[in-house]
Parts: sequence; C-alpha cells; structure tokens
Amino acid sequence: MQIEGYSIDLEKVAQTIKKKGYKTVAIQIPEGLKRYVLKIVEFLEYETHATMIVSADPCFGACDIVNNKLKNLDVEFVIHVGHTPIPEIENYCIPTTFVNALSTKDITKAVEKSLSFLEGKRIGIVTTAQHLHSLDVAENILQKNNFKPILTTGDARISTKGQILGCDFSAGMNIIDKVDCFLFIGSGTFHPVGLLLSSKKPVIAADPYTNSVKKQEIDELKDIILRQRYGAIANSKNASKFGILVGLKRGQQRMDLAYRVRKTFDAFNKKSLIIALDNFSPISLQGFSNIDCFVSIACPRIAIDDYLQYKIPIITSIELEIVLGKRKWEDYRFDQILG
Amino acid sequence: MQIEGYSIDLEKVAQTIKKKGYKTVAIQIPEGLKRYVLKIVEFLEYETHATMIVSADPCFGACDIVNNKLKNLDVEFVIHVGHTPIPEIENYCIPTTFVNALSTKDITKAVEKSLSFLEGKRIGIVTTAQHLHSLDVAENILQKNNFKPILTTGDARISTKGQILGCDFSAGMNIIDKVDCFLFIGSGTFHPVGLLLSSKKPVIAADPYTNSVKKQEIDELKDIILRQRYGAIANSKNASKFGILVGLKRGQQRMDLAYRVRKTFDAFNKKSLIIALDNFSPISLQGFSNIDCFVSIACPRIAIDDYLQYKIPIITSIELEIVLGKRKWEDYRFDQILG
Repeated sequence: MQIEGYSIDLEKVAQTIKKKGYKTVAIQIPEGLKRYVLKIVEFLEYETHATMIVSADPCFGACDIVNNKLKNLDVEFVIHVGHTPIPEIENYCIPTTFVNALSTKDITKAVEKSLSFLEGKRIGIVTTAQHLHSLDVAENILQKNNFKPILTTGDARISTKGQILGCDFSAGMNIIDKVDCFLFIGSGTFHPVGLLLSSKKPVIAADPYTNSVKKQEIDELKDIILRQRYGAIANSKNASKFGILVGLKRGQQRMDLAYRVRKTFDAFNKKSLIIALDNFSPISLQGFSNIDCFVSIACPRIAIDDYLQYKIPIITSIELEIVLGKRKWEDYRFDQILG
Repeated sequence: MQIEGYSIDLEKVAQTIKKKGYKTVAIQIPEGLKRYVLKIVEFLEYETHATMIVSADPCFGACDIVNNKLKNLDVEFVIHVGHTPIPEIENYCIPTTFVNALSTKDITKAVEKSLSFLEGKRIGIVTTAQHLHSLDVAENILQKNNFKPILTTGDARISTKGQILGCDFSAGMNIIDKVDCFLFIGSGTFHPVGLLLSSKKPVIAADPYTNSVKKQEIDELKDIILRQRYGAIANSKNASKFGILVGLKRGQQRMDLAYRVRKTFDAFNKKSLIIALDNFSPISLQGFSNIDCFVSIACPRIAIDDYLQYKIPIITSIELEIVLGKRKWEDYRFDQILG
C-alpha cells in the first residue's frame, strides 16, 4: 500500500493474517503515520475479517514493542510498522511482524548534492530504516564520482547493512578506521549528530525529503549538545541523592548496567534509587522531589534530546563517570545501547 | 512505618520478603508519596537485603498494576502502596501485595462538623482507602447524634465495606433506596461528585485533612461537569469518524464494551477504530488527526476530569448513547466500571 510517500507491504501482512486465521490483531505505528491508520485498518479488516486494535502509546522504535500489555486483550498477532526488528530481542509473547515503511522518495538529488561536501575519498554510508532499500543508489553515485563507498553491518541490534539507530551507530563505528567521513541519508538531526559525537569523523547529512545537505548545522548542533552536557555534568557534581532511570521498553533495558552504576554509587558513598519507567516525562519524575540528579540507563535521547524539559539534571552513565572523576571530559562519549 | 500523616505497614512486607527469600522487589507508590520512597527503599533494603526497584509510571489506583512490564527485570514480588486490591483482578504474573497507606488524621472533627449539613436521618457512609479504618468513628458519632449510619459492601471490584473508587460507587449505589443522603469522608472532589452524579442523592463531603465540610461546592461542581458533558455531547453530534479508547491497565479493560460500541457504530454506519492505550494524554492521541470524536471505555476520569486538555471531544459510552439518540439527556448517568 502506498501512503503519503511511503510503501508499506500490508498486502503480505493481510496474507499472513488470513493464512494463520488470526481473529484479533494489533497494529503499532509511528506518530507520523497515525493519521493514516484508519485507512490501513479499513484495508486490513476488509481483506482479513480480523478485528484490528491500534496501539496508541507513543512508539519510538523497535525497542518499544507492546506485546506484554496487549496480551490481555486476546491479541494474537502484532503488526509493527515503520521499524526493522532488533535481532537481539527474542521471545515475543505474541507473534510480531515488522513491516518497514519504505520511503518512495528518490535519494539521487540529495546524494548528488552531498558530493561537494564529502571529505576524503573513503565514505561510510549509513541511513535509517526508511531508506535502506535505496542504499545501492547512493553507492552507485559515489562510485561514478570516484569515491569509495563503504557499508557494513552493525552489531546484534542491527538487522540490515548500513543501518543506524538513534542509540546504535555500530554500522558506522565498525568502519571508523576505514573511512574519511560519513554520509548519512535521511531526515532529522539526531542520528547524524549522534554518529558525529560517537565517531568524531565528519558527518554529512543528505535529506531526500528536502534535497538539502547539512554539515555545518550538524557540527553546530554537536557543539550545542556538548555545551549542554558539560552544564549537566557540572550541575551534577554536588548531587548526593541519585535516581538511576531504567527503561521498561524491551530494547532499552540495561539492568546489568543499572546494577553496576548502583555499586559505583555505593562505593562513592552516594545514595541512589533504581527507578523503572515505561514512558519518560517530566511529570512521571516530578514526584521524586528529593532526588538531585537522574542517571538515565534507558534511551540516550532522554538525557540528550529532552534535557531542557527537566528541572534537575539527567545524565548518561558515561557522563556520570565524568561527574565522579572516573573519566576525563576529553574522553566524552555518546551513550549507545550496543548489542 | 509512619510517613507524613500515613501509617504504612512496611514491617509486615519486610517479613514477607525475608520469609520468601525474594531478591528483587518492585514498589509502586502513588504520586504524593514518591518523595518519601527513598526512605521506604532504604528501610526495606536494610531489613531484607533485597534490591528494590521503584516503578515510576504514574499510578492512579489498584486498576493500574505493572506486573507484566516488570517481569523482564527479574522482579519476583511487587509492593503496591496506597490502594486496596480490586478482588476481581486475578492472575497477577508476579506475586503482588497491597499495602494501604492509612491516614493517621482523626476524622472526628470533620464528621462532627458535617452533622449540621446532613439531610434526613438515614446516612450512607462512604470513603476512600485511606480512611477505611476510621469508619467506626464516623458511625459512632452519627449514632450518638440520632442519625442512622448505613454502610454496605460494594461489588466484585470493592474489597472493603464503605469503600468507593473513582470509577465504582457500588458501596453507595447498593443502599441508594435506604438512605436520605451520603456522607463522604476524604479529600478531593472527584469521588463525592461522581457519587452525586450516579446516585442523585445529596452528598456531603467531610475532609479530615482540612476539617472542612463541602456540600454547595460539590453541587456546583456537578453542574459545571454536566454543562461540560452537555457540550461534549453536542460537539460529537456531527462526528463521522470515531476512536474507541480502550485502557490497557488491568482494571480498566472493557473489551466486551468496546466491541459492543463498535457494533453500534457499524449499525449507525459510522467509521470507528479501536485504539488501545496505556497512558492517556493529549500527546498520545494528537496523531489521530482525522478522528472527530473519542469514546473512552477506560477510566471515566479521562473523559470527565481531563476534558479540557483535549482538542476534540472525549465522551463516555453512556454519553455516546445520547449522541446517537438511544438515550435521553434526562437519563444521563456517570460512567462506572462495575464488577
């Protein structure tokens, strides 16, 4: 099915539902596609006669599957739209299929425009789920223009060559010594800035939706983020009571890390509390009014992206090491959830 | 343990944890007590040597248990503070204990002050979890002053005589023909207004925290709510695309009702979508920009209390009957989740 610039293979999903005889099916869909979900549900209900239930809790990635909660509604099958699976996650308690929303935008213009921004000849290519099927187009353009495109697979959380997540840049980091710069294909700034912070190699972002290319903006955003992180670290130096924030979403749970952080606090004679949370928001945390600093073990975007929403500092576990004097600011690293 | 005007029997919980040898225990606590949770966790960890994990997602009642989500963190036992269990809910996937937070406030003054507000002689007494242990005080005061106090048990969702929930006034409704008015003991206005809307009998609210008695304020709030509900119903009359909101919280799931509502829409030739949601907020629903009206099957407070936060009308299934001409406005009823 074609929906607003995306191709979503719902026909195949409908066949699966019919073949398996599922009667109650849930669908999980990213924010931007929610306004088309009525059309999608109409199509699937007409084709399969199954009852469709739309899961409406915000969904930011394949880390964020809802199986457990939907089980009580007799849901037999979950359709997760817009993300590729995280191979590391197993044991779904309801069978789940991942249906990518493939952008129908031609990336040619954006990639061609990016050529004059590239630094060096060895170019690492990375992208998000929506453009994975177009990576050969980028490779061809680079080769024709005498660049050497380099693509690789990521770690156990990455399903496809060249793909990065907001919390996992391993498909870039694995080739860091072989490339002169990275070409990111996609929209938004979080992925290229995260890759820049992680790799410290130049990142050029080519946006196929606007046919614009960003390099300076990514560099500037990196500087802004680093200034904010420096401030958050400084503001945490005198904290004595810490909350360790653990994400309940399947792909964000890092309990081993939470326990390690807790032991560190014990060793430093600081009070700490393990706080588990499904949906992070300032409202969910405002009750903990006697906590001086939160250390987020969940999605790195909570500390980095949402920083200004919170009244007290939220830092990552890497930033905590700087707070406690175990790491130097010069060795700052972006917090990835790696597989 | 005594905490800010509440007695919480954590000593007994500590004994249970030690006896059973639990190593990882989660604690779920209402918003107002979150700032004391560090103290509670310190006590329990010192007494039991178990690791405590605080569940921080907002918790509005015993309908809202988190077992499923915490299972992946190897939690063996859940302590749910501040609410009494809903007996109807069974099959917790992690053993759960409910520890009430009993108000240490003496209710005498508030009840004595309420006497001059009471109408008739037969007085139905109702309260919330925090004051259940003080109901005999209220009974005695009423008897000494020549009133006839009447208390009864509720339906399968109510664990204790005289208790009402924000969504279940059965302990009042069961004696509606035997009483002249109701005396509500507790703070807040939602419970007494809900009882007033449900029973249409006078409700006098005696607040032990402020020693104030409210009757006129409750009546006025009822009128405000009815005007808002009338407006929401009027604004839904021309809707053609409906979202049926189902709560994922264990004690708020009413799938049978959701399916009945859906069939009604089919019969009236209106488009509808079943939308399942754990945490309701305007942000979670803003993506559904082509839906004209939401029918909430979940907690009745979502439609009634949070009405002004949403841009498009949210109505209850009873209000939908008025929208569709199946019920008269004169027969308006508050939406309860009954057992």
